[in-house]
Amino acid sequence: MSTSRDDPMTDTLTLLFAAPPADWAEYEAPLTDAFARAGFAARIVTATDRPETIDYIIYAPSGPVSDFTPFTRTRAVLSLWAGVERIVTNPTLTQPLVRMVDPEGLSQGMAEWVTGHVLRHHLGIDRQILHQDGTWDPVVPKLAPDRAVTVLGLGELGAVAAAALARLGFRVSGWSRHPRDLDGVTCHHGPDGLSRALRGAEIVVLLLPLTPATENLIDAGRLALLARDAVILNPGRGGLIDDHALIAALDAGHLAHATLDVFRTEPLPPEHPFWAHPRITVTPHVAAATRPGSAARRIAETVALAEAGHPLPHLVDRTTGY
Amino acid sequence: MSTSRDDPMTDTLTLLFAAPPADWAEYEAPLTDAFARAGFAARIVTATDRPETIDYIIYAPSGPVSDFTPFTRTRAVLSLWAGVERIVTNPTLTQPLVRMVDPEGLSQGMAEWVTGHVLRHHLGIDRQILHQDGTWDPVVPKLAPDRAVTVLGLGELGAVAAAALARLGFRVSGWSRHPRDLDGVTCHHGPDGLSRALRGAEIVVLLLPLTPATENLIDAGRLALLARDAVILNPGRGGLIDDHALIAALDAGHLAHATLDVFRTEPLPPEHPFWAHPRITVTPHVAAATRPGSAARRIAETVALAEAGHPLPHLVDRTTGY
Repeated sequence: MSTSRDDPMTDTLTLLFAAPPADWAEYEAPLTDAFARAGFAARIVTATDRPETIDYIIYAPSGPVSDFTPFTRTRAVLSLWAGVERIVTNPTLTQPLVRMVDPEGLSQGMAEWVTGHVLRHHLGIDRQILHQDGTWDPVVPKLAPDRAVTVLGLGELGAVAAAALARLGFRVSGWSRHPRDLDGVTCHHGPDGLSRALRGAEIVVLLLPLTPATENLIDAGRLALLARDAVILNPGRGGLIDDHALIAALDAGHLAHATLDVFRTEPLPPEHPFWAHPRITVTPHVAAATRPGSAARRIAETVALAEAGHPLPHLVDRTTGY
Repeated sequence: MSTSRDDPMTDTLTLLFAAPPADWAEYEAPLTDAFARAGFAARIVTATDRPETIDYIIYAPSGPVSDFTPFTRTRAVLSLWAGVERIVTNPTLTQPLVRMVDPEGLSQGMAEWVTGHVLRHHLGIDRQILHQDGTWDPVVPKLAPDRAVTVLGLGELGAVAAAALARLGFRVSGWSRHPRDLDGVTCHHGPDGLSRALRGAEIVVLLLPLTPATENLIDAGRLALLARDAVILNPGRGGLIDDHALIAALDAGHLAHATLDVFRTEPLPPEHPFWAHPRITVTPHVAAATRPGSAARRIAETVALAEAGHPLPHLVDRTTGY
């Protein structure tokens, strides 16, 4: 931390908004407001020819920065996204990298998307939306305590989603790399725990980070562990699933449905077979959009901590990739 | 209470299962089991030529009993349904009438249906189910704390549904005849309170009993109070809504959608305009089916209380009709 920053009001911080330029219209007012409320004089620029003057970079993929070398003064790169797999492998990035953790926006949105789609499949709502043909055919769904839901990944997003499902009464299991303890959730961990978490699961929610260890984690062998007529929800990352194995399991009738919010290529091309598959619902990466208002507050809070000399929260570990 | 019942094991209770005969297959084992576990010797019959021997009647509409006069010994009529509007006006019914209140089955099922359909409309899931045409069009829904949901009726079912929605983060208002106090829910009551509860509501859930005071409660005037593009969910009773006013409000574009689980005539006839209306989803009275296992336990518990000389719980008030 530079010594000239002891009183945050005496000096002006310079931040580079390094997200796609189209996002600036949404972020300008919330960021300006959040820094003003946090008591910082902050100048936020969307481009610079003096990278050595930038104190912090606010980052999203597909923005203007790919070489971080010239940002010699930059104290942290603050990701607007929870998933950092597109930046963490950048060899020019030597500055600390901070993931977006935003309970108010990102986690809340994810809990809503996951809960909504779990209940949609649990209740069989599609059948009623698609078949309003005058047939009165009351099929009473079983109750949530009799429905086995498994959440893979118990980080900020997975833990909040699993807790919301447990509070609704679902029988929830979770899995993570390291042991976790969550109220109302049967937690598994490690390689053996993964098989236990998947075996017999009726609805599986993928909320793992994409890393070399998780790529194609959901393959033919692991899909075979699920209950017959299981449903997969993927609001995590497209690369977590082996796409061919997924389509094979759906076509074989072992899986009943997959609702996918994330893809290896986004936007998902119109000719991609996922769109036309009768057992796949594509949602266009909306499960947990970063909300500018709350994300801007998280960015300002992180800068405030850094400027006060505190450790950075939600720092990405380069060895694990998240 | 007859004096011969002081020791429940010394005498055998006789119960008449007066629901549609087709339901007996589902109920025989759970009822037999529930009475055995409660420590009662109970003989449950599905017909009788000696009505004066029947201790309790287990009742559902469309069953074999319409004249309760000959059941001179019957200590209570135990409804398998939460809604009692089809029996409460029966002039031959002089025996105490008990509504079904079953948190484990009925209330849990209702909370799941309500939460699932509120989230479906909140997230705009229909759009994704119906339009898998390759168009990547990310519309990020607003978050639950910005969505105004109103629950009319804060009895057992309404209170549980409102609480589940509040826990998910929705901005929940409720309305009931008498003042209520529910955590996380802005409670209104009485005639003025109804307008306040409806004004600006984006999603309205109807969980009122059907009585002369609530029939056609949701009329053109009250629909006009709702937010533009509001959604109505009716898992309560068909008669709560003026059907013509509902269709007019949908056709005028003031309401976006109605999802209806209950109807004036059930099964809803195939030619009824609700089936074909593009802004109406019909679900076939599945929101809160009575589940035989837990309902049988509630019946046995009620009989145990009555036999021990305790007041009957959930006794229907004939003047209000619920």
